[in-house]
Amino acid sequence: MTYQEMRENAKKNMAPNCRVCKECNGIVCKGEIPGVGAKGNGNGFTICIDFLSSVKIKMDTIYKNEGQNTTISLFGRSFQYPIFAAPVAGMKLNYNGALTEAEYDAAVVFGTNKAGCAAFTGDGPQEDIFLNSLPIIKAANGIAVPTIKPWKNEKVLDQVKMIEETKAMAFAMDIDSAGLLNLALMGKPVSSKSVEELSEISSMTKIPFIVKGVMTASSAEKALKSGAYGIVVSSHGGRVLADTPATCAMLPEIRKMVGDKLKIFVDGGIRTGADVFKAIALGADAVLIGRPYAIAAFGGGEEGAELYTKKIGAELIETMIMTGCKTLKDITFEKIIMKN
Amino acid sequence: MTYQEMRENAKKNMAPNCRVCKECNGIVCKGEIPGVGAKGNGNGFTICIDFLSSVKIKMDTIYKNEGQNTTISLFGRSFQYPIFAAPVAGMKLNYNGALTEAEYDAAVVFGTNKAGCAAFTGDGPQEDIFLNSLPIIKAANGIAVPTIKPWKNEKVLDQVKMIEETKAMAFAMDIDSAGLLNLALMGKPVSSKSVEELSEISSMTKIPFIVKGVMTASSAEKALKSGAYGIVVSSHGGRVLADTPATCAMLPEIRKMVGDKLKIFVDGGIRTGADVFKAIALGADAVLIGRPYAIAAFGGGEEGAELYTKKIGAELIETMIMTGCKTLKDITFEKIIMKN
Amino acid sequence: MTYQEMRENAKKNMAPNCRVCKECNGIVCKGEIPGVGAKGNGNGFTICIDFLSSVKIKMDTIYKNEGQNTTISLFGRSFQYPIFAAPVAGMKLNYNGALTEAEYDAAVVFGTNKAGCAAFTGDGPQEDIFLNSLPIIKAANGIAVPTIKPWKNEKVLDQVKMIEETKAMAFAMDIDSAGLLNLALMGKPVSSKSVEELSEISSMTKIPFIVKGVMTASSAEKALKSGAYGIVVSSHGGRVLADTPATCAMLPEIRKMVGDKLKIFVDGGIRTGADVFKAIALGADAVLIGRPYAIAAFGGGEEGAELYTKKIGAELIETMIMTGCKTLKDITFEKIIMKN
Amino acid sequence: MTYQEMRENAKKNMAPNCRVCKECNGIVCKGEIPGVGAKGNGNGFTICIDFLSSVKIKMDTIYKNEGQNTTISLFGRSFQYPIFAAPVAGMKLNYNGALTEAEYDAAVVFGTNKAGCAAFTGDGPQEDIFLNSLPIIKAANGIAVPTIKPWKNEKVLDQVKMIEETKAMAFAMDIDSAGLLNLALMGKPVSSKSVEELSEISSMTKIPFIVKGVMTASSAEKALKSGAYGIVVSSHGGRVLADTPATCAMLPEIRKMVGDKLKIFVDGGIRTGADVFKAIALGADAVLIGRPYAIAAFGGGEEGAELYTKKIGAELIETMIMTGCKTLKDITFEKIIMKN
Repeated sequence: MTYQEMRENAKKNMAPNCRVCKECNGIVCKGEIPGVGAKGNGNGFTICIDFLSSVKIKMDTIYKNEGQNTTISLFGRSFQYPIFAAPVAGMKLNYNGALTEAEYDAAVVFGTNKAGCAAFTGDGPQEDIFLNSLPIIKAANGIAVPTIKPWKNEKVLDQVKMIEETKAMAFAMDIDSAGLLNLALMGKPVSSKSVEELSEISSMTKIPFIVKGVMTASSAEKALKSGAYGIVVSSHGGRVLADTPATCAMLPEIRKMVGDKLKIFVDGGIRTGADVFKAIALGADAVLIGRPYAIAAFGGGEEGAELYTKKIGAELIETMIMTGCKTLKDITFEKIIMKN
Repeated sequence: MTYQEMRENAKKNMAPNCRVCKECNGIVCKGEIPGVGAKGNGNGFTICIDFLSSVKIKMDTIYKNEGQNTTISLFGRSFQYPIFAAPVAGMKLNYNGALTEAEYDAAVVFGTNKAGCAAFTGDGPQEDIFLNSLPIIKAANGIAVPTIKPWKNEKVLDQVKMIEETKAMAFAMDIDSAGLLNLALMGKPVSSKSVEELSEISSMTKIPFIVKGVMTASSAEKALKSGAYGIVVSSHGGRVLADTPATCAMLPEIRKMVGDKLKIFVDGGIRTGADVFKAIALGADAVLIGRPYAIAAFGGGEEGAELYTKKIGAELIETMIMTGCKTLKDITFEKIIMKN
Repeated sequence: MTYQEMRENAKKNMAPNCRVCKECNGIVCKGEIPGVGAKGNGNGFTICIDFLSSVKIKMDTIYKNEGQNTTISLFGRSFQYPIFAAPVAGMKLNYNGALTEAEYDAAVVFGTNKAGCAAFTGDGPQEDIFLNSLPIIKAANGIAVPTIKPWKNEKVLDQVKMIEETKAMAFAMDIDSAGLLNLALMGKPVSSKSVEELSEISSMTKIPFIVKGVMTASSAEKALKSGAYGIVVSSHGGRVLADTPATCAMLPEIRKMVGDKLKIFVDGGIRTGADVFKAIALGADAVLIGRPYAIAAFGGGEEGAELYTKKIGAELIETMIMTGCKTLKDITFEKIIMKN
Repeated sequence: MTYQEMRENAKKNMAPNCRVCKECNGIVCKGEIPGVGAKGNGNGFTICIDFLSSVKIKMDTIYKNEGQNTTISLFGRSFQYPIFAAPVAGMKLNYNGALTEAEYDAAVVFGTNKAGCAAFTGDGPQEDIFLNSLPIIKAANGIAVPTIKPWKNEKVLDQVKMIEETKAMAFAMDIDSAGLLNLALMGKPVSSKSVEELSEISSMTKIPFIVKGVMTASSAEKALKSGAYGIVVSSHGGRVLADTPATCAMLPEIRKMVGDKLKIFVDGGIRTGADVFKAIALGADAVLIGRPYAIAAFGGGEEGAELYTKKIGAELIETMIMTGCKTLKDITFEKIIMKN
């Protein structure tokens, strides 16, 4: 299967929810929530694309070529690229149901694994979204990151116990789901979490805990205090609050606040290897990618997820060649130009 | 009646003056004055929309959830949300006359009251615009804000006496009507007001007086000197002068000038709960909303006005959840990002 | 004749050269030279429009109303508004020849005079362009400003003598025609002028001399040294060099350089009374307007030019009302907001 | 042949690869690689156009006219204008094969020579691209600049020896081809070059060596250390890395770093004489132009290349007239306005 064939398949399989646009930038689907889209005018997502596009890369090919190494060590493991599939769930609500939750999770978990990477899996108001992901994570030898909603801590504890059985290498909570009032209407209330509540979750297990949905330096500092292993700088793809700033624009001040005490992931509009490069230069350790993995999974299943991972991995290598970066550590702020 | 049904009704009832656009941003109707529109190239209004869109909100859901309280105390009363319907008049001239002035006032006054809020009512060259609003305000137990044009003070005194009989909780004067030369042509001259003239008006009654149409810090300072209870930072929806700056962009310097000595209202492109949040973060106590209330009233009468008020009230709550704001006092400048 | 009828006539009379667009902003006609247009990508003109649009006006109607006085004293005369028709010539080359040079000059000279203002007239490679303007200027009692090309000074001297006979109140030279290589091809070479050459021209007569086509502070300083009465900050409507900055954007530094020792006129995209207001706030004494006067003249002759002058004069008054300006002296930089 | 006829021919001869757009700005062909286009979203090229367009020219025609001299001395020779044809190769892959490599090289080498200028020629994975250019360069008495890919130095040495036989006045290496992974797939690996490797190339011959594809001050400093005669500030037309900044935007800091120790050429979106003027004002000694020369060659062969060179040469003179520049040395940073 070629990349182009995968996209053609996806176009057929995802209609009408996702148009598999040439540039996946949130413009065509803006306001289509549920669906792909983003909230309100959709600017919370499009600004991520616009910001990344405004960051420029300093090309320099005068250096001794010693190859490029894109590996990264996280959770005590080595990954081929600093690239993860973001948690996506609600196949019926958000997409057209052409894949089940389990089929989707299998595609991204096994597909990314084959490319030396890993996927985050999702959670939702229907219990089976979370439950169905567990056997897949177990089958993947735990090389995946289950993500749970900010339910009450008692419910979270039940989920953490189930996660431990899968030997998952890490788990996450998308605290930016706190405002999803529809979950409360379904009898599944979520809410913000205090540092104390997050600390309690951190302490439930030895599995590294990732707080997803951090957008400010002070929020990152609180995540650090709560004992988290890492954070995902994320605005939930612009789907929980309109008018959020670009996620990658917040990276420099967040990194400055937490130093190396937290692993920093970021999502929001990362589409190419050059985008991965920029995110790292701005302060991220690794990135999460959402919609393009959905396209890959709907268009090519496990093979699609593998194909896409390798594609942008190769683009990352190419960008490193053009900028004289031997390892990810060489991708610093000095390699880019960020407008004020 | 659902929100969508209300809008569908409005589309039928308001044609051809207002198209009830998906985004009410003054682009389609630019230059259509009278009508909805705004003056000249319409930029005086569209800049309000553009500025608000450029203000970003800092999401942070790491905090102990203790609920959200959106109430505000004004004129010795408590309101459910810091949201008021702006004065709109001239149903024939500006709209298509499908509602009478009295029907319009009744819809927004009673509708906002039912949602725990209130409306400003308008004035105009035809005496009945003002006169017809009085019984409605009285029936609403005075929970409304009649607005008068900057006529000569003798005429203003007559109006103030009539307002006192309605037991209105406050009254306003839209001093930015000073340039409406067509009023003079109709034998109803308006003009700018000196501090002395405004002081005279302030002193006519114990009812709190609001000066509407203040756009600079020095203008706000003059309103303060005149003994006003509050001001509305407003450019009259861009309808009295082209090329005015965005109203919300002026809030920080105006608030800095007057401190807490004046209540600050603002109108101009406020459309969502997130916009209300931004206006307060920038320095406002409360907002006025115009065109969307016209759509609500033409599409759903009293019920429409109630529905719209509750809708953006809920959006305000949602934004407070996503930013860790317990009360309106927590909505500070630190919660937003304003570009220079 | 109404303003709208004048425009409808103009549409018929000017096709296909000028489309009489709703907004006369140089976009439709860009690159159409000869014709209306501007050079190359047309940006030299459109930037004038864009810059003026970005300048905002500070509304303030809290002041004691004492009326508005728009008169200005220039060349020892008083004018009703600080508004002049810019020199336009080449009716066949640039327009469609529906008016002769003399008909055009008569329309703008007499029309602006009737509105208490005046017009500049033009020059060109055909001798009769200049010659035909002289009797009209004389008939207007010299209340016009003939403009000559930067020919060799001997030829200029001949022209100055003829101008003296018309009792013209002033005369101008558009030194920004220096690069018009086509004139040389026609055997009519023009060129830049040194301070010495301009001084010589200044000394040829007691009639005040205006240097048109100054775009920098140092260029203005040289004009001052040459003994000129005034300058026109102008980029010739973007028609002699692509990529010039906005004329009005240069006003503050030019005014700072020459102080009150030179009268400063400006042209380039002035379309409304608000634009006149902005130009004065930025440092101009008065403005020149080109294309809209061409539309007025082709659409309504003398009456059209009078109508248009009064229209934007009224808009200027309205803007003064909305900002508390009693005379033109009150229109200062503090009345506007200019972005950096 | 007129300029317009040349373009009409080109439209026929270049379809469908190049549309010979009115404005050659990389928008229509974006992402079409191979083909004309640029990589990814094409922004690496369009930003060059946008940046140049944002640079404004300070018009000033108050000066004593003493003519304009556009000549420049490079490689011990004098050229009529500071304008060179950029290396373009791969007639089949990138264009439609309507010209052979040799026909293309002959057109641009002889055509530019006739206008007193010169062309760079290209290299590629097929040996004949380079080999076929040699007899043409020899026939042109060496007044051309052959460009070689960053192959291994042994292969480079072979090429340099062949270049010496043509008596070429200079030779270049486009080190920004280092990331072209497709060359490795064809068994022709290229890679970055260290200062030592570049020094070795420099030392292979007495022919001046130009490093093409420098985008940062530190990269320029390394080129200087390697003994190069000059550099070309270039992002390869946006064709080797997406998201590069505008080449001309990097000129000031590069010039500041290397002073007069290196000749600085620049390419990327130079289209008019005004653009040449801007590039020189920003710090370049001379410019390279790519796509417009391809259009000239496909549309008019040798005559087309001569015609285009003279056209923008004339535009450069015109811009110098309008800014009071007698020689290229007068085109300084003070003559332009560059936004931050």
